[in-house]
Amino acid sequence: MTELPPPPDIVRSAYAELIVTSLADARHFWVDLLGFVLTEETPAALYLRGYDELTHHNLVLRAGPVAALGCLAYRVRSAADLDRAEAFYRALGCPSDRVRAGVTRGVGEHVRVQDPLGFPVSFFASVTHPQRLQQRYDLRRGAEVARLDHFNLCVPDVTAACRQYASLGFGLSETIEDGQTLYAAWMFRKQTVHDVAFTGGAGPRLHHLGFFAHEAHSVLRLCDILGSRGAQDHIERGPGRHGVSNAFYVYLRDPDGHRVEVYTSDYYTGDPDHPVLRWSVRDPRRRDFWGNAVIPSWYSDASVVLDLDGKVRPVVELAQTAEVSVGADGFTAPASE
Amino acid sequence: MTELPPPPDIVRSAYAELIVTSLADARHFWVDLLGFVLTEETPAALYLRGYDELTHHNLVLRAGPVAALGCLAYRVRSAADLDRAEAFYRALGCPSDRVRAGVTRGVGEHVRVQDPLGFPVSFFASVTHPQRLQQRYDLRRGAEVARLDHFNLCVPDVTAACRQYASLGFGLSETIEDGQTLYAAWMFRKQTVHDVAFTGGAGPRLHHLGFFAHEAHSVLRLCDILGSRGAQDHIERGPGRHGVSNAFYVYLRDPDGHRVEVYTSDYYTGDPDHPVLRWSVRDPRRRDFWGNAVIPSWYSDASVVLDLDGKVRPVVELAQTAEVSVGADGFTAPASE
Amino acid sequence: MTELPPPPDIVRSAYAELIVTSLADARHFWVDLLGFVLTEETPAALYLRGYDELTHHNLVLRAGPVAALGCLAYRVRSAADLDRAEAFYRALGCPSDRVRAGVTRGVGEHVRVQDPLGFPVSFFASVTHPQRLQQRYDLRRGAEVARLDHFNLCVPDVTAACRQYASLGFGLSETIEDGQTLYAAWMFRKQTVHDVAFTGGAGPRLHHLGFFAHEAHSVLRLCDILGSRGAQDHIERGPGRHGVSNAFYVYLRDPDGHRVEVYTSDYYTGDPDHPVLRWSVRDPRRRDFWGNAVIPSWYSDASVVLDLDGKVRPVVELAQTAEVSVGADGFTAPASE
Amino acid sequence: MTELPPPPDIVRSAYAELIVTSLADARHFWVDLLGFVLTEETPAALYLRGYDELTHHNLVLRAGPVAALGCLAYRVRSAADLDRAEAFYRALGCPSDRVRAGVTRGVGEHVRVQDPLGFPVSFFASVTHPQRLQQRYDLRRGAEVARLDHFNLCVPDVTAACRQYASLGFGLSETIEDGQTLYAAWMFRKQTVHDVAFTGGAGPRLHHLGFFAHEAHSVLRLCDILGSRGAQDHIERGPGRHGVSNAFYVYLRDPDGHRVEVYTSDYYTGDPDHPVLRWSVRDPRRRDFWGNAVIPSWYSDASVVLDLDGKVRPVVELAQTAEVSVGADGFTAPASE
Repeated sequence: MTELPPPPDIVRSAYAELIVTSLADARHFWVDLLGFVLTEETPAALYLRGYDELTHHNLVLRAGPVAALGCLAYRVRSAADLDRAEAFYRALGCPSDRVRAGVTRGVGEHVRVQDPLGFPVSFFASVTHPQRLQQRYDLRRGAEVARLDHFNLCVPDVTAACRQYASLGFGLSETIEDGQTLYAAWMFRKQTVHDVAFTGGAGPRLHHLGFFAHEAHSVLRLCDILGSRGAQDHIERGPGRHGVSNAFYVYLRDPDGHRVEVYTSDYYTGDPDHPVLRWSVRDPRRRDFWGNAVIPSWYSDASVVLDLDGKVRPVVELAQTAEVSVGADGFTAPASE
Repeated sequence: MTELPPPPDIVRSAYAELIVTSLADARHFWVDLLGFVLTEETPAALYLRGYDELTHHNLVLRAGPVAALGCLAYRVRSAADLDRAEAFYRALGCPSDRVRAGVTRGVGEHVRVQDPLGFPVSFFASVTHPQRLQQRYDLRRGAEVARLDHFNLCVPDVTAACRQYASLGFGLSETIEDGQTLYAAWMFRKQTVHDVAFTGGAGPRLHHLGFFAHEAHSVLRLCDILGSRGAQDHIERGPGRHGVSNAFYVYLRDPDGHRVEVYTSDYYTGDPDHPVLRWSVRDPRRRDFWGNAVIPSWYSDASVVLDLDGKVRPVVELAQTAEVSVGADGFTAPASE
Repeated sequence: MTELPPPPDIVRSAYAELIVTSLADARHFWVDLLGFVLTEETPAALYLRGYDELTHHNLVLRAGPVAALGCLAYRVRSAADLDRAEAFYRALGCPSDRVRAGVTRGVGEHVRVQDPLGFPVSFFASVTHPQRLQQRYDLRRGAEVARLDHFNLCVPDVTAACRQYASLGFGLSETIEDGQTLYAAWMFRKQTVHDVAFTGGAGPRLHHLGFFAHEAHSVLRLCDILGSRGAQDHIERGPGRHGVSNAFYVYLRDPDGHRVEVYTSDYYTGDPDHPVLRWSVRDPRRRDFWGNAVIPSWYSDASVVLDLDGKVRPVVELAQTAEVSVGADGFTAPASE
Repeated sequence: MTELPPPPDIVRSAYAELIVTSLADARHFWVDLLGFVLTEETPAALYLRGYDELTHHNLVLRAGPVAALGCLAYRVRSAADLDRAEAFYRALGCPSDRVRAGVTRGVGEHVRVQDPLGFPVSFFASVTHPQRLQQRYDLRRGAEVARLDHFNLCVPDVTAACRQYASLGFGLSETIEDGQTLYAAWMFRKQTVHDVAFTGGAGPRLHHLGFFAHEAHSVLRLCDILGSRGAQDHIERGPGRHGVSNAFYVYLRDPDGHRVEVYTSDYYTGDPDHPVLRWSVRDPRRRDFWGNAVIPSWYSDASVVLDLDGKVRPVVELAQTAEVSVGADGFTAPASE
């Protein structure tokens, strides 16, 4: 492997853009039911954030013909890191371009790339600070999400994905593995369990976006609200406790099938020698610490991703043993996986 | 003591009527901040209830020139119990009258009495059931109060008050006492710690209305909301854990100074031989299990009460030793008490 | 139907006796993992209670050759109610006997019957009060259960079971039904949603014992503890929110397969006209308000019951349409049901 | 000001050493009541940590003749940072020495300094990882503290202290101030509100050590446990919600009077342009968001600190206006402050 230029100094996963087929339906789900804060809206897009967030948005919902991931956006430390990002990915042979400040509202100039894993990734260094709402308890609704926590991505080769992100300076916090195979991995820049996780599966696809809430009762409350509105079918899996990350979680599907996790209570990973926690793929507690079976759709479904021209990226099948075929999740894996 | 006629079969404390000097201010506090459900309103009154409540209201806020307690209302088992109430209090020499159904919205005919302790007490047997909102989590706001739990009354002679309520068939759950004096007592008809409590003090006055919430985090959330709105001065005492009742509590004062407790997590008292829990007045945990000092105003302030003609009842000074002068509450009692 | 003598005045469901095949294993599960208080033990039995309980026990675990329900025990108001119980069931043609005080530790004389539904039911009027532990937070462990809440029974004919318990003076709080069939019913004496519930199924069998905890986080904590100990297979269903009762729940199976529910946050039912809440069998929220599928074993498995001679009662198949075959629970019912 | 050498790269506040006059009493308080994990003990010291902590200890309790702060210890990124620390403080004219690995159990070589503010500060780069207990919910007790969160220090000149720590690369998250005076400041290296805070007061003294817990109910539980044991006098202030940091808190005093905060739910501060939140000293919500009065001892009491020879450092009086004399905390400041 030839020497790469230095990677950009990535601060954290900052926002994602989802393409939704109905802004009205998406707004009902994300704003009215989940309780996201609407920072700004245009005819084409909604900009949402959590109650603690001091960046303009954690989520862009953009209207489009096909439900897909529009981009994963990382905050970098400085404008110079935009140049570093461009050089880094150019050296990898990845297509990239620049998007000028304000095209995505509330954030500065972006470098966009199609990364070696096939994902549309954006980097930006400057933001507009929205109103601080953290202590406006009177405004909180729904799950009271605080901020974006992480991206979870389906990739055909988890080891390759980890290697790629390690070259960007991400640390490794937890894995699911056995002697032969790395089934899943959690990687971080900010001092939490992850900014990004990789799940073995046909890819590139977005498995889910994870948002942080402060306490478990907010997750329960969200489920209660969905039941109250007859919208309980949005709940796909959970609530439960993850073995990996130790977080309390619930997974929902939005009207376009995009998956969202509300997630609370992981742990500090900022020490330089933070030890990796390696879970056996055969430990039934790895995906749910209480041993509850993973819903089959949770392993099979994910959102397709767009390329820099806005076209859906073709999906490559899983190139390794499927976790679901070896892990003891309490259900028989469908033959097609 | 001559033989009294049989008392009415009282089911529970059901609602109270508070006279407020501004319906607009009261509505802001009780509905907008605390999150009570508004069942019905008229130009003269607001009818509020908790989210679990299946009676038309737990609280009537009625406009009037002087902030006061308008009445304490108990549900009785049947219409025959209205007659029993009338006969019972007549035998005690108490003034009484009948109020026809609908004068207080959503409830049937009332028997009103001025009881031997000087309080305006109403009895009713029939109710209009409002919409069941218990599982409308999407509508819940504020403290998410479930229902009225109890009345707390200031009386000059706690022993006399207990004797009066025992003759009505109330059980005794807890006391604060020493060898000489009964300082406070908690009495019940429904199977909780109390429907009514007596606190030694100048009286007849209403010390507070207690409303039940399901979990402690709802109490914390209420305080957070008050802070968010700059309305933290409504918080008088707490949150904390009571020694007596074991409940988690906060006390607020409404715009007229009426005191309200949001209260969660007491215990079942329905067994026929339910044992009384007797607290020493010298146990610093009796009023706050964590030993936090009671705020002086909590002992001194209370709402005056109206007679059946709507005039403020004169207040009689405490006729026994003041709890505050013997209990170790962490502050020196003002000389006037 | 000929006139029956007056039924005993039942106060509440007070305790159950489970026959377990290993006292050591049962003790590990109920005391070490779940955190029940051990009031007393003999070579043949463990007497357990919750932290709020002021009766000697809520659960007797008795060693025996076959895992089964030994008895359901109701507290009655007075000794005269023991005579009433005897006469009432004798008029129904049910076998009964008396068990003298102290045979079951900590409680007085019992009247035992095999009730018309085939269950072994005991009545007692006097108890020994154990130490009050409610405010010994330093001793609390596991799920921190407060007290027994209810029995849930599998019966082949739910309507017949309801009629039998209505004749005992139980109120009806909630049902699952459609135009043709009553699939399940919740009935109460104390002022909660239930002391006993009936689930349509082969019977007489005990579906589960329900114990009350004060807040949802105690239920989550119990699951976390089970995961910590690698004992997660004891978790059968949940945690989740019930539609019926609105309670937050988890179902566990003990080492003999007896099912236990930890249950929190239901509602007051003590008003004389408390309205019945009727759920459609087709409402997917009736069994889980969040729409999560009911685990098949939850519908199929239950504990057999003993007769008064300690022999296992034969089980009669379900005599009506199975709820699971009409309700939309998100899974296909096995053909055998 | 002459150019300083580059400061060490500080990762976070890692542990503190407290001198206690009775190890037995300290152990009862910190281990039995608060529930800290005992990693190791020697005849002279106890090494404690939280349940999430992967460093050997967060707290050393060392027996000594005078209750005092023994040291504040920061983890640095690498061994080279030890040299940088030594050079940095030598350039400031501060006494320093090296302590070889293992003198403090479980951590590597230390550089010790007496910093310009008069505090004994240690730096270390390597640790022994103890057993990972985060998912041993079965072992958790007391407040279930997860890790050390911060040091809070009394300094006579808050502005000078901030300047000193800014030179070490600390960011500023929140302040209490007015046009004339900086009354208090919160500064961080890890991505939380603080690793260290400065409170205006006679100094150098340790105001408190802050430990992180995951949810508010753990704080309430701790208070309940203290009440259960009759140990409620250890509770000095709270529980409550801080305005500054938005965290839910309680302050306790250990048997030697050292103050400890259990603290939950602050926020992410890792973005490079994280905006400072500036509170007016006149906002009654700054110290308690619910407006509850600060207990006078909380402003006046603090622990003295040792110099590198183990002698108590003399205390310098507050060199600026006292916050308590201008802030509206609901009580009148004693004249001596």
